[in-house]
Parts: sequence; structure tokens; C-alpha cells
Amino acid sequence: MAEARAYPLNTWYAAAWTTEIGRALTPRKLCGKSVVLYRLTDGRVATLEDACWHRLLPLSLGFLRGDELVCGYHGLVFDGGGRCTHMPAQQTINPSASVRAYPTVERHRLVWIWPGDPALADPELVPDFSRNDGTDWVGEGGTFVSLKCDYRLVLDNLMDLTHETYVHSDSIGDENILAAPFDVTHTDRSVTLTRWMTDIEPPPFWRRLLNRPGARVDRWQIVTFKAPSIVVGDVGVAVTGTGAPQGDRSQGVNGAFLAAITPETDKTCHYFWNFVRNFDRDNDELTAALTKGHVNDGKGVYDQDHRVLEAQQAAIDGNPRTPFYNLNIDAGALWTRRLIAELVARDTDAATMHAAAE
Amino acid sequence: MAEARAYPLNTWYAAAWTTEIGRALTPRKLCGKSVVLYRLTDGRVATLEDACWHRLLPLSLGFLRGDELVCGYHGLVFDGGGRCTHMPAQQTINPSASVRAYPTVERHRLVWIWPGDPALADPELVPDFSRNDGTDWVGEGGTFVSLKCDYRLVLDNLMDLTHETYVHSDSIGDENILAAPFDVTHTDRSVTLTRWMTDIEPPPFWRRLLNRPGARVDRWQIVTFKAPSIVVGDVGVAVTGTGAPQGDRSQGVNGAFLAAITPETDKTCHYFWNFVRNFDRDNDELTAALTKGHVNDGKGVYDQDHRVLEAQQAAIDGNPRTPFYNLNIDAGALWTRRLIAELVARDTDAATMHAAAE
Amino acid sequence: MAEARAYPLNTWYAAAWTTEIGRALTPRKLCGKSVVLYRLTDGRVATLEDACWHRLLPLSLGFLRGDELVCGYHGLVFDGGGRCTHMPAQQTINPSASVRAYPTVERHRLVWIWPGDPALADPELVPDFSRNDGTDWVGEGGTFVSLKCDYRLVLDNLMDLTHETYVHSDSIGDENILAAPFDVTHTDRSVTLTRWMTDIEPPPFWRRLLNRPGARVDRWQIVTFKAPSIVVGDVGVAVTGTGAPQGDRSQGVNGAFLAAITPETDKTCHYFWNFVRNFDRDNDELTAALTKGHVNDGKGVYDQDHRVLEAQQAAIDGNPRTPFYNLNIDAGALWTRRLIAELVARDTDAATMHAAAE
Repeated sequence: MAEARAYPLNTWYAAAWTTEIGRALTPRKLCGKSVVLYRLTDGRVATLEDACWHRLLPLSLGFLRGDELVCGYHGLVFDGGGRCTHMPAQQTINPSASVRAYPTVERHRLVWIWPGDPALADPELVPDFSRNDGTDWVGEGGTFVSLKCDYRLVLDNLMDLTHETYVHSDSIGDENILAAPFDVTHTDRSVTLTRWMTDIEPPPFWRRLLNRPGARVDRWQIVTFKAPSIVVGDVGVAVTGTGAPQGDRSQGVNGAFLAAITPETDKTCHYFWNFVRNFDRDNDELTAALTKGHVNDGKGVYDQDHRVLEAQQAAIDGNPRTPFYNLNIDAGALWTRRLIAELVARDTDAATMHAAAE
Repeated sequence: MAEARAYPLNTWYAAAWTTEIGRALTPRKLCGKSVVLYRLTDGRVATLEDACWHRLLPLSLGFLRGDELVCGYHGLVFDGGGRCTHMPAQQTINPSASVRAYPTVERHRLVWIWPGDPALADPELVPDFSRNDGTDWVGEGGTFVSLKCDYRLVLDNLMDLTHETYVHSDSIGDENILAAPFDVTHTDRSVTLTRWMTDIEPPPFWRRLLNRPGARVDRWQIVTFKAPSIVVGDVGVAVTGTGAPQGDRSQGVNGAFLAAITPETDKTCHYFWNFVRNFDRDNDELTAALTKGHVNDGKGVYDQDHRVLEAQQAAIDGNPRTPFYNLNIDAGALWTRRLIAELVARDTDAATMHAAAE
Repeated sequence: MAEARAYPLNTWYAAAWTTEIGRALTPRKLCGKSVVLYRLTDGRVATLEDACWHRLLPLSLGFLRGDELVCGYHGLVFDGGGRCTHMPAQQTINPSASVRAYPTVERHRLVWIWPGDPALADPELVPDFSRNDGTDWVGEGGTFVSLKCDYRLVLDNLMDLTHETYVHSDSIGDENILAAPFDVTHTDRSVTLTRWMTDIEPPPFWRRLLNRPGARVDRWQIVTFKAPSIVVGDVGVAVTGTGAPQGDRSQGVNGAFLAAITPETDKTCHYFWNFVRNFDRDNDELTAALTKGHVNDGKGVYDQDHRVLEAQQAAIDGNPRTPFYNLNIDAGALWTRRLIAELVARDTDAATMHAAAE
């Protein structure tokens, strides 16, 4: 039996920020598939297989004519659904001539595509990533395109924040993260890790944001994984004794790290990230500073993760050992990988049923 | 059964322009074989396996002593026929010590080598590439060394000029190419594609060369493939109604694109190209302009093909689908590939007979 | 049966110059294994597997805390013996948690590690490389890190100095090397090649060092291979007739090229080299000149070898032919490879016995 696929296909994956996709042809590799994205004249986004039916030239080297894509080699034309509508120098069109079109929706400021069976592509299944909408919560993130690691290494990283103590010791790291107990719960599609650090000195990052000199704080990290590739991390601090653990965060500051990670290949991924907050929302200077704190020419928090993740993948490639050894801190990551494996198995079942029905 | 080889071996392939080969040692990979070319003192070109018999150091790192090549590591000496004539620190020479020598001829301003069975290497089999001689037809072409595509993709490209409409829309492309009927004929060693576009507006490239403002023209493309790797494309325009389709080209301008494409590996090739004409032959400025029109730092006609061909190969590698789907326009390319496949099969037969005879 | 390993494991290999290893974490790949070297507070050198037990992040990306190495991802701590002494956020330590520690000794100004069975790692087995000690013989060598060739190609090179005539024709090369007879002897762990060239014109390199204008010399090359990866080449010239061949070198100059070559992978190696002399030892200018004569931005003697060795490996990769053809001059190299093959076989036997005993 072959090794299981690293990622399920019957699910929505983030493909791009909505602002990235316009009338230019944008090639991208997602889940091992080369696709080209472009915006139709009615504003919707089309996602086609990026290889002409005829001779495989990437369609992204062609050009748009209205809503249709013209191949740059021999001029075959495809509509936004992938159907060939014109062949050069012949009147008859082979009725089977088409390229694959991927179900595509825009939501939460991202473009999502469904790489699996189109019949199952229910837009209602796009995961709740609403903190990225730019309304109640604000922030301007970015993308690591073609990050050189298995997307699950990013998930491991986000589902265990003890690494902050070592990887981000100069900003959000804190020995208290290690000392505080944490709790992991799960449903069949999500995993939630909750950690409260009560009555501690705030680490530098949060001290600056809270701006209450001398105050001790309660700090929280409530990180939710939504299978197979979304993480929403509710994080913040509030002045100790003001009721944050009981639900009153009014004497605190609250942010969220948002991550949509999409496999590019088995060993590379695209990482759409944002860090949003629900306070001081009109402060553009603060927004810019938070963005810069995360990605800043190698010096940001995510740059630090980037370095670790790529080094980890290289080490795995050079030194394969399966499975990893695990610690108590890996409980969140373990559940995450378990849910992914279940989705992958469900893909196989769906394909089997589909085949049986034919 | 293994997949058939992409190219036959018992045939002549262009290895270099004659002007490229002098007393310097020129390494080149041809049909998967590393060879070194150099000119003997009598002016002939020798082509040897580029790996010393002893320890495989490329002989191209050595030096010439008269007609003999001295290995740069331990000083073994090989004559132009590949036979070892000197071994260091010993009197006796192993009589079997040699490197392979490839039959080599110069013709039509190119050096040709025969990578297959030397016993079959008849110089009379060098394909007619006489328009490259620099006499009746003039032009100064060049070489794409190590173009990153299967050489057959170049042949596909040249045997179907409808791509001009899309790839070269700013120069020789023309919607009329698509509208005009074409005819494909073949022998057992050649394929000829003929297309006449009568009574049309000349496209920009030909309008400039013809220099008959306002005239409508008859345009022709008569492209001949000579198996396995030569294409001669007779192309031109003449003023409509002056008899060109019937054979009188006196009121027109006539050029020819010449291509000798040699596999370097299964997925790379060397492309020796020229564009020649039989009019205004002493006009060096025009010669230079035509050369520049074809290859010009990424902006020439062949630069445009180059980009398409390499992108197509990359797409094939990332997205294997065999065989290609074909259109009516692919008739020339289909025959081309069929003749190549027959030559490859004939190689196998020759090898079998050879083995049986021993 | 799989192809035999290219190198034995139950042996000492040079890993670094002692001066290279301090409190910084130094990653290096040796015998296919990624290791990290660092100096403990008591001055000894520790060599650990460069991959955390937990999630494989290279430990070289972590930091030292006293004698212990802290992983830069989740803070696992390992002592100099590779045992995990701390795990984040938990009291209990998995008793099997450890990374591999390699026996390490410092001798002859080099750090040596034993990549095989630690139980067999007897420091007395470190080969005699005492001419590198910096006492009786002086010289300042260097390292080719990650030379792109099988380490045995370097041994071939050093065990047959006829190549000097061709590769180093401008310095130490001499046609006399080819003319002079040589003798090869061996034990079960060493091979010695002896060549005397009597009553010759000294080549440029030695003429300068001897500084006896007009004198003819006796030149010697006594090169000893110590399995599996050390070469000591005793070389020099003395005025002819003063008794050098009989043992009196007082009217001559004597140097030694020293080489410790360590496989990095099957096709790359690290080459620790030195050229030492026992005369004019306080002449730092001469020391610097000799170093520069060997490695000098591509122009030194070893730079010339470097170029040949990497080209040879590339040719082998592109043109596999096994075994090499051999000449008389290869007698030393042949014995060298035979002893290595015996050591590799002994590794297998040791592993078999080890398995049987369990």
C-alpha cells in the first residue's frame, strides 16, 4: 500500500488574497496541481488547469479575451468553465476538449479553491476565517509563497506555542508558557488548545501593546485548528484580577494570529498569514508595526519560524525518521494530524464510492 | 519493454558551426554522449569521446600536441581516431586502449557527427542543407545551445506554422495562416507541408521586405522536414496575380528558415538556426537585421519560440500526459514523429542483426 | 547484494582542525551523518547527531548552556554525551530520549571522530599524523570543505604522483617522475610508494627551496597511505652524490604533504591538507609562500588537483564505467582501494558478530 497522501483534496484551500487576482493571469501550484487564476468580467474568479488541452503549454502564458482564455501557442480558447470554444484552423471542436476548472469562491478576503471532486464543493464548507474580514478585527498580513516545508510542519508549529520561548525569545517568548498547564479539546473537524498564564510579567510584545506600566497580567492563548489547514489563534493579555479568565477582557488587549496554509507540493506550501486585533483599529501606524513585527526581512517573528521550518524539513529529508517522537506539548499537533489523516481516508472512501456508483 | 529512445543514432546530426571548431578543444554533449571536437592539422575535424580511457577525466581538459590529444591528468595520448598512442611510465600500450571516435564530416557550414554504428556512416547521407552554404542564399544564423526541451518539440513547432499567429503576432503572425488550407505529403524520409495564402495583406515582416506599398500578396510556406532532425522552410510573398503559385516568384521576395536540431539529452537539444534569402544578398545591414529579428536578447522571433518551448517541456515534466491530443493542424508534426519512430525502430533492427551476425 | 559502502565506519576520520572548534556550534556532514561539534567547558570536544530527538531540528541552530546544548525549537536539552536532560513543560523525561554522540579525540592538531560502533573506538587507533603537530615539522594548511568527489579519487591522486607532470607542469611537475622506477609495498593497514629520481635537474619548486644554483639533485617521493584516509608524503631533494638515497639528507631539503580525507557523502569529501617542512622553520614568510603555493584562489597546486578531481567525478557520474582501467602507475592506488575494501568488509563482519552476540 502506498503512503497516504499528505493532504485531503475534498476541501477548500486558500489560493490567494483577493487583491492578488485581477485581469492578469496568475499561475500558482496548489496541492500539486498547476492552476491559473484570473478574474472574469463579472468579478468572479476562475481557476483553470494551467496546461492547454492540446500541447500542455501553460495557459498562463496566453491572454484573456473577455472571459475567455486564449492559449499563447496555437490559440485554442477556453471559457471560464474550462470548455474549449475555439480550435485553430478547424470548424469542428472536439466535444471532449477542455481543461479542468476548479470550484472557486471568495470569502474572508481570500480566494479559495476546491481541488477535489467538484460535485462535493459546497461553499458553505469554507472554514470560518471571518476575523480576516477587515471589519471587527484589523490587520494586514501577507503570504509566504512556496515555503519549503510540508504544510503540516507549519500546523505543528502553530498548535504548540511553547516554541515561542525558544524561537521568539526576544518578543513573545516567555518561560511562563512552559510552566502553564494547557488543555486540548477536539471535535471531528477542529482542535482547540487553551492555555492561561495568570498573574505573570507580560513579555515585551504584550507589555508594549497593553501599555500599563508595572501591571501584572493574565495571558491567554486559545488556538483553534480547523481541518485541514486553518488556524485561528486568539491571544492576548489583561490586567490580573480584572476577570479575563472569567470572560471580561475589557482591561486587556486582544489579538489573533490567522493562518491558512495550503500544500503546494508534498514538501512545500503557501502560508497566508495575518495578525489582527480588535483595539485601536484606526491606528495605521500600529497596523504597520505589527505587520513588520511578523515579517521584516528575516527579523520578524514569522521569519524566525520560517527559518526553523525550512531547516526542519531539510533535516527530515536528510534523516528520515517516522514517526516523530512526541512530548506532552504535542497533544494539539497530534490531534491535528489525526484529523487530517481522517480526511485523507475519507477522500479515498469517497473515490471508492464514486467508482462503485459508476 | 522500455520506452523507445527519443532519437535514432544511425544518422548524421549537426554538432557545431564549422567556424566554432578550431584548435581549441570544444566539449559538447550530443545524443547523451559527451564528446570533444577539435581540428586536426590537415583541417579535418576529429570528434572523440570526452573521457579518458584510463580514469575518465574529460579529454577536453587536456591539450593538443599536433594531431594528438594529451590527457590533462596522467598524460595518456590519443590520436584523432581515438587510439591510445602513449601511456605514462610504461613502454607497452594496452592494444585495446582507446576512446570512441565519431565519424565527422563538414558540410553546409556545419560539422556533422554520426553517433551510431560507424560502419553505417555514409557521408552521402548528410541531409541536403545546401541553402546554408552561404552561396545562392545568404544569412547569418546562430545556435541555441542546450535549449531545455525535447528536440521533437522544436520539430512540432516548425512543422505547424499556425503558431506564428499567436507566438509571433507582432511580426510574421497572421490570421490568414489559420484560414488558408494546407497540404501535407511525405516520403519515407521527409514530410512536406505546403500552405498558400493568396490575395492577402502582407504581415509586417514581409511588407517591409517586399517594399511594395499597398500591394496585396500571395504568401507561401513550404516546409520540409528531413528525418530525423532537419527542417527547411521555404517562405515568401509575391505580388498577387504575378504567378507565384504557378512558379514565377520574380515579383516577390523569398527566404528560408533553416533548422538543424540535435538532441543533447532526452529533454534538451541544440538548435542550429539560420534565416537565409536569395535577394539583396550583398546588403549586410539587412542580413544583420534579419538575424536580430530572430534572436535579439529575448525579443526576436526565435526567442519567442524559445520561451514557449521551454515552458512546454516544463509543463510536460510536471504534468505528464501521453500521447498529446492533436488537431488538424498537427498533421505535419504527426508525420514527422512517425518517421522518427520508424528510424528508431530501424536502429534496433540494425543492432539486432549486428548481434546475430557476430 | 547491494554495492559495498565506499568507506568503512569503524575508524577515525578527521572532522575539523582543532582551531575550528570552539564554543560556537559547528555543523558538518561526515560519512553521510550530520553532526554538530562544540567544545565543552573543560576543553574537550563533543560531537552530537545534528538533529533533535523530538522533531529533528538541527541542534546546531540551538545554543549552548554550559556543557549542554539547547534545541532552538522547543528547548530540549542534551548533555555532551547526547542524553536528554530536560524536556519542555514536563517533569518526566523519556529515558530513551537521546541523540547519538560520536567518540571524539583531538590529536595532531585535528579533531577526529569515530562514526562506527563506539565500543570499538580506541584512541590508540588514531593514525600517526604527527608531522602535523607543529613541532619538528611546520606548515599551515587548510581544508577543502565539501570537495565534489568521492574521497577515493583524492587518494588515487595522491598515491600516483605521475600526475604532477601534467596537472602541475608549472611547479612540481617533471618528466623525470615518469622515467623513474618506483616501488610499492604494503602492510594490512598501509601502502607505501617509493620513487627516487637520481641525478636530475631539480624542478622549479625544489630549485627555489634548495637554493643551490646549478646543482643536480636526487629527488625522492615516499608516499604512505594509512587506511582508510590518511596520506603522508615524504618528499624532497638533496644534492646528487651527498648520500640521500643512503639516508643522509643533510645536503637537501625535506618536506611532507599531509592529507586527511574524510567522506562527506559517497560523492563529496572534506580534504584537510598541509604541507610541512623540517628546515628554515622560523621563516614565516616561507610558510606563507608554501601555503599560497598550494591553495591560492584557483592558482595553487591543490587548486589544480581540485579542478581535475571534480571534473573526474562529474565524468564518472555522466559516464559510469566500472572498474576503471589501470596502468602500471596505478599500483599504489590499487592497493589503497584494496585495503579500503577489506576494512569495509570487516565492518560488515563486526556488525554480523555484534548481531549474533545479542
